[in-house]
Amino acid sequence: MALNPSPLAPQSMPPLYPVKGIRLATAASGIKYKNRDDVMLMVADAAVVVAGALTRSKTCSAAVDWCKTVLSTGQARGILVNAGNANAFTGKRGLETIHRMADATAEALGVLPDDILLASTGVSGEPMDDAKITNHLPALIASLSDDGWAAGAAAIKTTDTFAKGASQQLEINGETITITGIAKGSGMIAPDMATMLAFIATDADIAADDLAAITRQVTDESFNAITVDGDTSTSDTVLVMATGKTSSRLTGSNLTAFASALKTVMVDLAKQIVCDGEGAEKFITITVTGAEHHAAARRIGLSIANSPLVKTAIAGEDANWGRVVMAVGKSGEAADRDKLSIAIGGTVIAKNGDRVYDYDETPVAAHMKTRNISIDVDLGLGDGAAEVWTCDLTHGYISINADYRS
Amino acid sequence: MALNPSPLAPQSMPPLYPVKGIRLATAASGIKYKNRDDVMLMVADAAVVVAGALTRSKTCSAAVDWCKTVLSTGQARGILVNAGNANAFTGKRGLETIHRMADATAEALGVLPDDILLASTGVSGEPMDDAKITNHLPALIASLSDDGWAAGAAAIKTTDTFAKGASQQLEINGETITITGIAKGSGMIAPDMATMLAFIATDADIAADDLAAITRQVTDESFNAITVDGDTSTSDTVLVMATGKTSSRLTGSNLTAFASALKTVMVDLAKQIVCDGEGAEKFITITVTGAEHHAAARRIGLSIANSPLVKTAIAGEDANWGRVVMAVGKSGEAADRDKLSIAIGGTVIAKNGDRVYDYDETPVAAHMKTRNISIDVDLGLGDGAAEVWTCDLTHGYISINADYRS
Repeated sequence: MALNPSPLAPQSMPPLYPVKGIRLATAASGIKYKNRDDVMLMVADAAVVVAGALTRSKTCSAAVDWCKTVLSTGQARGILVNAGNANAFTGKRGLETIHRMADATAEALGVLPDDILLASTGVSGEPMDDAKITNHLPALIASLSDDGWAAGAAAIKTTDTFAKGASQQLEINGETITITGIAKGSGMIAPDMATMLAFIATDADIAADDLAAITRQVTDESFNAITVDGDTSTSDTVLVMATGKTSSRLTGSNLTAFASALKTVMVDLAKQIVCDGEGAEKFITITVTGAEHHAAARRIGLSIANSPLVKTAIAGEDANWGRVVMAVGKSGEAADRDKLSIAIGGTVIAKNGDRVYDYDETPVAAHMKTRNISIDVDLGLGDGAAEVWTCDLTHGYISINADYRS
Repeated sequence: MALNPSPLAPQSMPPLYPVKGIRLATAASGIKYKNRDDVMLMVADAAVVVAGALTRSKTCSAAVDWCKTVLSTGQARGILVNAGNANAFTGKRGLETIHRMADATAEALGVLPDDILLASTGVSGEPMDDAKITNHLPALIASLSDDGWAAGAAAIKTTDTFAKGASQQLEINGETITITGIAKGSGMIAPDMATMLAFIATDADIAADDLAAITRQVTDESFNAITVDGDTSTSDTVLVMATGKTSSRLTGSNLTAFASALKTVMVDLAKQIVCDGEGAEKFITITVTGAEHHAAARRIGLSIANSPLVKTAIAGEDANWGRVVMAVGKSGEAADRDKLSIAIGGTVIAKNGDRVYDYDETPVAAHMKTRNISIDVDLGLGDGAAEVWTCDLTHGYISINADYRS
């Protein structure tokens, strides 16, 4: 099935700056897709520092288990990714597949298996013929290029309607540091379980512990702040490699500047994933303030963002703040009905447990017709704040997930 | 908008046996609906034992706050309910409305205000003209009848496509005890926030503490085991009155028999609510076994039942067990991918972390085309078990909640 591009898709892929020490290549395995590349190999010139974030699913894929082990060493050499088969819930044979893929990639690169990270995305519960992927390793290695980011972004797509990439450069001590990333994901579409994957590299010189801490923090503020349907993939994977090809080790305020640039890249990629949410017609920014603490604000934001009633109301261009009140109330976090205020498109509609009876409906109605909807909720309880991004719930979601079945 | 009856609606309302000591009446307030009754008064001949369960929403309606106070006394005399306006998120004036309604009803019945329970369902955030309701009190009281259950069930509907009632009789010490209940709810439809309400009465003679404990337990096994869209109303209310008009105080095994009959009534009402879920075309029973404990089994069941991907797959008649694996994994409860087994329509499809490669797809495909879908999940970890009921997620849900906006 060919899907139309999302109406929220960016006009074009932004420039993706090469990262010193990182090269990429793609190939077509034919495992599922015809006439397109579906394998990506990303290789560092030498062993580099790596950090990551993996799905918390208790039924995670074998590749996720494998990445956990590699990440615990804090270093890696390459990442092999395929689209079309997630090798998830494939039992013992899935584990054997993982070992064969790591072994073959390591051997071809002349490194050890636990230098190789793996990710697979696509259909679940189907045995994966890994030879169809690993057969391409010699050709992949021969064609590695520091300019392969856009092709890599296209190769890891499953039901994504557009390829996703983001890139930032910052100056530190008169030197340019580059951070470039690609991602895929558009919800959890079956038969393709559209895992969220993101692969990011930088030429920054950073200690493994610092990269791990910053990756954890920034993932929380980006990929963990988005939701399409509240469903969590068994394969979600974010990996960040740092090649250290720039000359000064990041410390102090330079670490902060790096973290900020990494956040820009990750938030950009995360928002692109929301813009490709199945059936998405509107991008929704939910800002929660005045909660007891940050985690409470996040959970309230996600409760609103995951509410089918809030999402369908926005699809219907209805500024239905009553459903927002409901979603705040069910979040399980502290809330006081009589201190709550809600603004839509910047217009305060509800305040102190009551509707604002004389609010001007004209700008609110106009806002609801736009592509970018904002909902601001203030709990009036404390300093906890969080921003969460999601999309609306439309007939398109139902069509993609129910009508076109395998 | 007139909604077509749900395809899952029962053929007809079952017989609703009168309960000794309980009379009902209905009236048309005209607050929102035309040409139909939308007010129900239920009155006990004398002060009776009462128990209940109320929404845990932190943004609950003023009526829920009021019921909390009355329930803490363990006794009541009457219940006044209206449909069309939920009097929710109406601030201080909403609270004043509640007090006027309780005062007027108490005065008309010659009792105290805190003998009166209140429930309102319908649009949120709109001031409610309570005089339009209380003006009918003299006529309501004049027309009270022990045969008013079916009319009461019809009067409390909002966007429900059918009226919901259930009734059971049991023999204890040679005497017939009756339990009769009515309910409404079909999800959280706006502008009518379709609150779940249930009003049940029995002529059993039961201690207040016993009724409270049994109501809590049985609510957990019935109304708390259903979900339409995972959204929680600000007004959910279950009330159970026991008139004590039968002659023997329930103790020991008789209490157990009573609890069992009450559970039959409540499960029946709960399932009727699921059958009236917006856009529902299939009724889904999810049975979880082998979890660490009951609460874990319940949460895993609800994680499956609330997954948009599971619900759309079932709408598409697709036995997509991969989405069930995903929903188990995201529940947050203990699960071991390699011990999990999943059956659909009684056919085991996945076992020990892998697909059953030679399972017979024919009975599964036939099962998916029926109205009643069963999903059995065994975690293989412990003795925790739970049953959860939900419906599929169809274009009808989107149409009801997005297309027909106010």
